Amino acid sequence: MNEETDTTADVRNVVIVGSGVAGLSAAVYAARADLEPLVLEGPEPGGQLTLTTDVENYLGFSEGVGGMELIQNGKDQATAFGAEFTHGTVENATLEERPFELELSNGDTLRTHALIVASGASARWVGADNEDKLMGYGLSTCATCDGAFHRGDDVLVIGGGDSAMEEALFLAKFADSVTVVHRRENLRASEIMADRARDHEDIEFRWNTELEAIHGSHEEGVTGATLVSHPDGYPAEKVATGVDVNRETVDVGGVFYAIGHTPNTEFLEGTAVDRDESGYLHTRTADGRATTETTVEGVFAAGDVADPHYQQAITAAGTGSMAALDAEAYLEAFERTEETALEVSP
Amino acid sequence: MNEETDTTADVRNVVIVGSGVAGLSAAVYAARADLEPLVLEGPEPGGQLTLTTDVENYLGFSEGVGGMELIQNGKDQATAFGAEFTHGTVENATLEERPFELELSNGDTLRTHALIVASGASARWVGADNEDKLMGYGLSTCATCDGAFHRGDDVLVIGGGDSAMEEALFLAKFADSVTVVHRRENLRASEIMADRARDHEDIEFRWNTELEAIHGSHEEGVTGATLVSHPDGYPAEKVATGVDVNRETVDVGGVFYAIGHTPNTEFLEGTAVDRDESGYLHTRTADGRATTETTVEGVFAAGDVADPHYQQAITAAGTGSMAALDAEAYLEAFERTEETALEVSP
Repeated sequence: MNEETDTTADVRNVVIVGSGVAGLSAAVYAARADLEPLVLEGPEPGGQLTLTTDVENYLGFSEGVGGMELIQNGKDQATAFGAEFTHGTVENATLEERPFELELSNGDTLRTHALIVASGASARWVGADNEDKLMGYGLSTCATCDGAFHRGDDVLVIGGGDSAMEEALFLAKFADSVTVVHRRENLRASEIMADRARDHEDIEFRWNTELEAIHGSHEEGVTGATLVSHPDGYPAEKVATGVDVNRETVDVGGVFYAIGHTPNTEFLEGTAVDRDESGYLHTRTADGRATTETTVEGVFAAGDVADPHYQQAITAAGTGSMAALDAEAYLEAFERTEETALEVSP
Repeated sequence: MNEETDTTADVRNVVIVGSGVAGLSAAVYAARADLEPLVLEGPEPGGQLTLTTDVENYLGFSEGVGGMELIQNGKDQATAFGAEFTHGTVENATLEERPFELELSNGDTLRTHALIVASGASARWVGADNEDKLMGYGLSTCATCDGAFHRGDDVLVIGGGDSAMEEALFLAKFADSVTVVHRRENLRASEIMADRARDHEDIEFRWNTELEAIHGSHEEGVTGATLVSHPDGYPAEKVATGVDVNRETVDVGGVFYAIGHTPNTEFLEGTAVDRDESGYLHTRTADGRATTETTVEGVFAAGDVADPHYQQAITAAGTGSMAALDAEAYLEAFERTEETALEVSP
């Protein structure tokens, strides 16, 4: 080791960005391998699962488990093996040189030999007027979490994919009526999900329609919404270009966004870590088999951030453990290279 | 539907071969999707995890969970959603025609539209005295799982390949000393892995040596081992033919078998399901991302049977859920094709 400067002292073996299921599973494995991982908890500590009340499909809990409970168990589990947790959001990553450097939004800089990106994917927002103000006050991105607050209400679901159909069907258990608002005339949802929603007597559809504004207050919650529609679809685009659209304000007690997720990978912009057009990370295969290696050696990806398709808690936990095992193998090889280099040039 | 014969009545939507973690997770997901899966429990019901006493690295259990307990929980969970379990080992699979046909070793034949292969990989056992009794009580086939229980112990690793070197290196983090016991004088391991192990100050080698017996009890765990050695190697063979060998009993607190795993895929011999030279199933990628599809449409693979590398409980549970989701999508598309075919030829 280089003893002239003490730069090695503050370099982490592995930093895990994200504290959802994937990050926690990576932390458990990395900690058990004595790598003393540091887990960065970002703006949504615990990730998507904390927005879910009951998790029934995570193998091992015969009666199901609460989303928050599973996350807390996982955090306790990782901590018990020596994982460290701290709040921090990565603003910028410098991955061209070793060790890697991470700039956090609080101004701190972290240095690490290996990096596991488990920063997840966040629900998308529509961009309607007042959504900032009313998010969490009758506007929600999670029907499972907030549906029960809307017994007897009329609610809107914004979106046309499978998850919009799922949310609509779930909300129909509580709400008086559910109206699916979709900007086109055709659903992106699978036929089976679309049929289920269409066949439900409490679910209606507003085609070629978009949400322009949400009305309400912190005190009253959501009280109404302004919808724009145009027979050719995509009415908001038409508003932007000055085309006349039909505009209507409806009385509703809740609005649910179901227009997909965006992977949290902005901090990797400008790095050599390869992302697809939606921002999801690409991972490599070795001998035709999946790994968690990204296109930058020493950077690994786990969970929803590299999985636009399955996005299940149990799959995220699985790839989390893979990422830690991959990082461990990388660090072992890396140490040996450093030792050899020192032997050659003493 | 063909009403002249009642052949459709006894065709399953999906049969899951194997009741380890992967099969159970697939069963939970398939059952929740109303596919009424049938799970075949083979010769090792519950799979590899039933050989482990404490599982500390499966995310969600802050205090760890027993291997048997996790399996029983998972079985209860799958059953609660409508999965059916039956004992049966597939002898032969006919996958050229739909529905698929599975011949069981008891003579029964099963027919199914989709097949999830989650039959696992079995760790090879040495054949030493007492191994049946002490497996899970200080004798282990998984250093990653059980290494942390051996802080301060002297342990043996049996084997001479890459995985034996990996296990030895991993164990050296915890154990006081690790002795690799190999029946020949040369390692099968790759040079880089062999060098790493040889260079480690806490790892020793016993060449031309084999494990004959393990000593200990359920209460005390492993307390010792009897080793046989002969300068020409393969001492156990020499014992069998009456040649004198050197015999020694050593005090050790743990024994790890690392002589490989054999995937349970013999029943797929002669089918179009692609396997690698060791018998592990190949799965396809779609857009560069992992799926559980094998080379036969409608046949999916989950867990260790398609994973020679990671082989963790949590990764198997993850791919189990992926296989069920893939099977569900396949069956939906399949039903739609059948409906279209019926409409075309009434």
